[in-house]
Amino acid sequence: MRIFVINPNTSKSMTDHLRQELERIKRADTELKVVCSEYGPITIESAYDEALAEPATLERVRQANEEGYDAVILACFSDPALDAAKEISDIPVVGIEEATMHIAAMLGHKFSVTTSGKNRVPTRDLHARKHGLESRFASSLVLDMSVAEMDAKPEEAKARILAVAREAVAEHGTEVIILGCAGLAGYAEDVERELGVVVLDPSSVALKVAEALVDLGLRHSKIARFAPPPEKEIKEKA
Amino acid sequence: MRIFVINPNTSKSMTDHLRQELERIKRADTELKVVCSEYGPITIESAYDEALAEPATLERVRQANEEGYDAVILACFSDPALDAAKEISDIPVVGIEEATMHIAAMLGHKFSVTTSGKNRVPTRDLHARKHGLESRFASSLVLDMSVAEMDAKPEEAKARILAVAREAVAEHGTEVIILGCAGLAGYAEDVERELGVVVLDPSSVALKVAEALVDLGLRHSKIARFAPPPEKEIKEKA
Amino acid sequence: MRIFVINPNTSKSMTDHLRQELERIKRADTELKVVCSEYGPITIESAYDEALAEPATLERVRQANEEGYDAVILACFSDPALDAAKEISDIPVVGIEEATMHIAAMLGHKFSVTTSGKNRVPTRDLHARKHGLESRFASSLVLDMSVAEMDAKPEEAKARILAVAREAVAEHGTEVIILGCAGLAGYAEDVERELGVVVLDPSSVALKVAEALVDLGLRHSKIARFAPPPEKEIKEKA
Amino acid sequence: MRIFVINPNTSKSMTDHLRQELERIKRADTELKVVCSEYGPITIESAYDEALAEPATLERVRQANEEGYDAVILACFSDPALDAAKEISDIPVVGIEEATMHIAAMLGHKFSVTTSGKNRVPTRDLHARKHGLESRFASSLVLDMSVAEMDAKPEEAKARILAVAREAVAEHGTEVIILGCAGLAGYAEDVERELGVVVLDPSSVALKVAEALVDLGLRHSKIARFAPPPEKEIKEKA
Amino acid sequence: MRIFVINPNTSKSMTDHLRQELERIKRADTELKVVCSEYGPITIESAYDEALAEPATLERVRQANEEGYDAVILACFSDPALDAAKEISDIPVVGIEEATMHIAAMLGHKFSVTTSGKNRVPTRDLHARKHGLESRFASSLVLDMSVAEMDAKPEEAKARILAVAREAVAEHGTEVIILGCAGLAGYAEDVERELGVVVLDPSSVALKVAEALVDLGLRHSKIARFAPPPEKEIKEKA
Amino acid sequence: MRIFVINPNTSKSMTDHLRQELERIKRADTELKVVCSEYGPITIESAYDEALAEPATLERVRQANEEGYDAVILACFSDPALDAAKEISDIPVVGIEEATMHIAAMLGHKFSVTTSGKNRVPTRDLHARKHGLESRFASSLVLDMSVAEMDAKPEEAKARILAVAREAVAEHGTEVIILGCAGLAGYAEDVERELGVVVLDPSSVALKVAEALVDLGLRHSKIARFAPPPEKEIKEKA
Repeated sequence: MRIFVINPNTSKSMTDHLRQELERIKRADTELKVVCSEYGPITIESAYDEALAEPATLERVRQANEEGYDAVILACFSDPALDAAKEISDIPVVGIEEATMHIAAMLGHKFSVTTSGKNRVPTRDLHARKHGLESRFASSLVLDMSVAEMDAKPEEAKARILAVAREAVAEHGTEVIILGCAGLAGYAEDVERELGVVVLDPSSVALKVAEALVDLGLRHSKIARFAPPPEKEIKEKA
Repeated sequence: MRIFVINPNTSKSMTDHLRQELERIKRADTELKVVCSEYGPITIESAYDEALAEPATLERVRQANEEGYDAVILACFSDPALDAAKEISDIPVVGIEEATMHIAAMLGHKFSVTTSGKNRVPTRDLHARKHGLESRFASSLVLDMSVAEMDAKPEEAKARILAVAREAVAEHGTEVIILGCAGLAGYAEDVERELGVVVLDPSSVALKVAEALVDLGLRHSKIARFAPPPEKEIKEKA
Repeated sequence: MRIFVINPNTSKSMTDHLRQELERIKRADTELKVVCSEYGPITIESAYDEALAEPATLERVRQANEEGYDAVILACFSDPALDAAKEISDIPVVGIEEATMHIAAMLGHKFSVTTSGKNRVPTRDLHARKHGLESRFASSLVLDMSVAEMDAKPEEAKARILAVAREAVAEHGTEVIILGCAGLAGYAEDVERELGVVVLDPSSVALKVAEALVDLGLRHSKIARFAPPPEKEIKEKA
Repeated sequence: MRIFVINPNTSKSMTDHLRQELERIKRADTELKVVCSEYGPITIESAYDEALAEPATLERVRQANEEGYDAVILACFSDPALDAAKEISDIPVVGIEEATMHIAAMLGHKFSVTTSGKNRVPTRDLHARKHGLESRFASSLVLDMSVAEMDAKPEEAKARILAVAREAVAEHGTEVIILGCAGLAGYAEDVERELGVVVLDPSSVALKVAEALVDLGLRHSKIARFAPPPEKEIKEKA
Repeated sequence: MRIFVINPNTSKSMTDHLRQELERIKRADTELKVVCSEYGPITIESAYDEALAEPATLERVRQANEEGYDAVILACFSDPALDAAKEISDIPVVGIEEATMHIAAMLGHKFSVTTSGKNRVPTRDLHARKHGLESRFASSLVLDMSVAEMDAKPEEAKARILAVAREAVAEHGTEVIILGCAGLAGYAEDVERELGVVVLDPSSVALKVAEALVDLGLRHSKIARFAPPPEKEIKEKA
Repeated sequence: MRIFVINPNTSKSMTDHLRQELERIKRADTELKVVCSEYGPITIESAYDEALAEPATLERVRQANEEGYDAVILACFSDPALDAAKEISDIPVVGIEEATMHIAAMLGHKFSVTTSGKNRVPTRDLHARKHGLESRFASSLVLDMSVAEMDAKPEEAKARILAVAREAVAEHGTEVIILGCAGLAGYAEDVERELGVVVLDPSSVALKVAEALVDLGLRHSKIARFAPPPEKEIKEKA
């Protein structure tokens, strides 16, 4: 099968990293195309970034449909434009947050999600509610370290991740931790080993859910929430 | 006070109509600027339309801040880009859906919302949950008539609106009806008179909520959910 | 417009204070009458006090209707007799708790409410549920200081308010703080400045919501929850 | 044991009827005192009636405590002044709605409640939420017949009750029906026999719950929600 | 009346202890039979133990029906096989967890439940949701002491119980504590005296609820959730 | 990979049918073992049947672990003994109801589940709540036809399924239908074609979710809800 993976930001290095990760775990018979958006913000860290990233992301979704792919993955944890993508797509669209939250709910009673800054905590809360999983969502784990800081000080990063995870297990009943920030996989092994929790990498989970949906011949329902949008005049930016 | 009203689509006629309505009910000391987006879809009827409308809508939000207005109103019932708008705004931003659902909850036990087609029913459901009002949201009332059809056959339109409203009152316990589709105000008088329910026009409600917030010197909290987005590289569309 | 403000307790000094606050922020074209109940408890700090305060409060609601006012405000944070008041009133009745909780939900993800003692914490919880806002209600902030103590030791009062607010921001995700105890406005400026949260004074918010409803020609629905009560024999106290 | 039963309205005939019913099912070692309020409305059919009934009801609660009874029952389905009664009482106070809803939740998946008019439907909804039982509450069954009409036309009354119950079973998944209107016991036998649902008479259920609590030496917790109200000045009605 | 009490595990000493407790508080006219399961696990501390205990428990339920008892009590706090027991029983079946959670909800705003180890915390959470009481369930109180340890070190046990209870009152708003572990009654007096919370012993509460149901002539509804299971071939273990 | 599929009942013909279905859709590199329980009920249609089926099902789960399989599937829509199976298993255990409800929630706004008789409707409701998906669960679709009747009258069966599905789409907003009864796949094609809804076969979905989990090297968390049960004495049936 052929799966089209969209990194909704415009960072080529993050896209390369994502491609390597997914190539490593894809099935032998899965062919991947991993691309970023042609325009928009370099990273997505706010609702504003999401809004600016959505039009280019949706162009990629159209491209995946036109090029005959079997499924699309939106590889940004906020799932920007997920509903719109499902509307314009005849092939299944998998949002990495949506897919990972549902898999997490099967693997433990409560799950927590790492987040870089406290400004995204309310959004995570609202997304858990959107997916109907508020009773299984334990907490956001605020790292308060940028990706750059983590790269520069890996031991500090590991210690920080372990500290918030330990608190989540003890205080919030967390049994599964979702790595909601990019590039954490390497730092999280200690968490799994020391705390015994399950740790999920959202892009990996989404790839496997996409493969499963394609195997099953399934896509999202098109009769209401994801019905094709009506054709209409779109005024171009001057 | 000076209030900046954004019609997030690109329809000048709808914008003119909106301006007339709001000019009629604004306070004497309120000055309004009512504009539509400079680019994007001519109407907003899907998540896809919303996504395409958001960048231009956010440019208008910036403009309102730069021109020293006291508040912004997003005048499309789906509240496109509402969270992003609050992030980039130092003045209060009022979404007409959000404001009207909260006022509706004060005026009756349950409220229903008219919607043109059944494809928007799940979205309304999700938005009621987003605003935390799912226990007060009774139902979406699907009209299954386009604005054009309503204009052409006003008696049929009135009958249709009355029929769905009557069913909502009898079956869903609706006490307040929100006109979630543009241009219905004229057709809804019968509903109020014959059924005794309260009928809300969202743009009007939002204007009065905006005036109230300005009077109170309030805006949205900027410490987490609506914190200013970090500065970053935005790649332009080629 | 003419707005009738009822302080449901019998404290003339609190009523005078309330009148001064509201006169200061009312619109120029708004005329206020601010009165307390003719009989009942001097302050309202329990469900028992509420029950005793309700009959006299409802007499004031009737008076407001008879004297041709445009709206009624119930100015006690527990909104005593709010449903009953709406039943017997043909003009809108605004409860300060109800109105302020809804406005708070528009201004931030989660709100907290100050309360003088821990005995009112469950009631606040139940009221948030009654208004359908339990998913946006973060916590009650117990001050454990009486109004008298606050007056006597203003620096301690300020420090106490700041401490509970800081904890709410850090631990409960609070973005908006509602001053659920009378007379706190003066002490709360530090909270707004140091923590960046939005602070709401319920009586002020309610006045502006009332002005908005009158402008819009709205009142609560009278078809079910707030239908006029049937006429009947009321046996007088001997 | 000695149980003090308060009919919160002022109808002596309803009180006599209640006394007969309860005397018939009380345990041999239970002594009952069944009284109505000394003043207030003759029946309770609105929030307004509730508010007017509460002060006299609370006087009866004090009397029960002073006369050394072991428990108090509030025998009106809206449980007027229930929280206030628990605040001022050192003996357990059983509200017939609260007790019956909890027992109903043990006896079937979903319960419905009969109500005389549609104006009480929202209140029932809110009370189910107050008791935390909204997921088990199926519906209100509106009879649209007054007690007088039922007395005059018993066959019609039986048919009406059977019709709404049948619809509840088929449409709402009701397994238990609570007789939320007084004087229905006689008419409801057909419902039990023909539909197989469990039918609960709230006053009877409350009496048995009260006997159980007294046997167990239990009363409500007094540390927060039902803490004794502070002593204070209560201004008498002139 | 005659009540059949099933201890779903196979511990004779726990059964003897249970019999003594219940004989002490039963009504004079109540006759008790208190038995344990004939086969299955010696204690029930996991979902696995529950599953193994259910067939033998259900045999006891059949026996109670065949021997003409008036009610059955399942005396293990996880209520193993409760739904199945109600399906095969024509007499009321009272689960001690279900009954006690409902009574707790009447006696205070929030209740907590003691549990021996943290592995049962998610189950308690899910059971509170099953009974529809999640909004009133405050927390599980993990004792982290085995029954043997408690017997050996009674002073430590008391201190531990008091410590978790104190935290629950201060942090979770707990007003009622349910002793979810067997044999705690003796250690919990300090909790009631020092903290003022209500403490509930589930077996005692269940007995009184059973007596109440028998007095009322009630059993669970048999029309859907607890309908008699269809007759069918059951293959015996070889 | 090697996947062990347990049919928790004792019907060899249903097991054969299940094996054929799964062999047809498994990946080439997946090896299946599909077995039924060695003892217990021939079909599972009640909580009683579930309870009787659990011990033998758990023996199969142990066998799968001992024989070095990579994952276990419990192939009965009520997921009997799912939590217990996860406790005793070191390899992932996939319940077909749990997995399918989560996948359904990704593919449409609301899902419905077919059920043979109305007695299972409350259970489905409770399971949706257990999985945290109550806000996405639309309804149970009661077929009121036995498997035998469906076999005998295939045209009637198709018509019946289409009728309940059509009602679910129109009345409950259903976008995805889960075939909660065995052997319906053949009858459901019309539903997909005529109504445009997505139709899910739970066993197929579960197989693909199991393959995905094995690919990802994941299993359920073992730190609390699914911690290994303590060793203990299990008394054998005489």
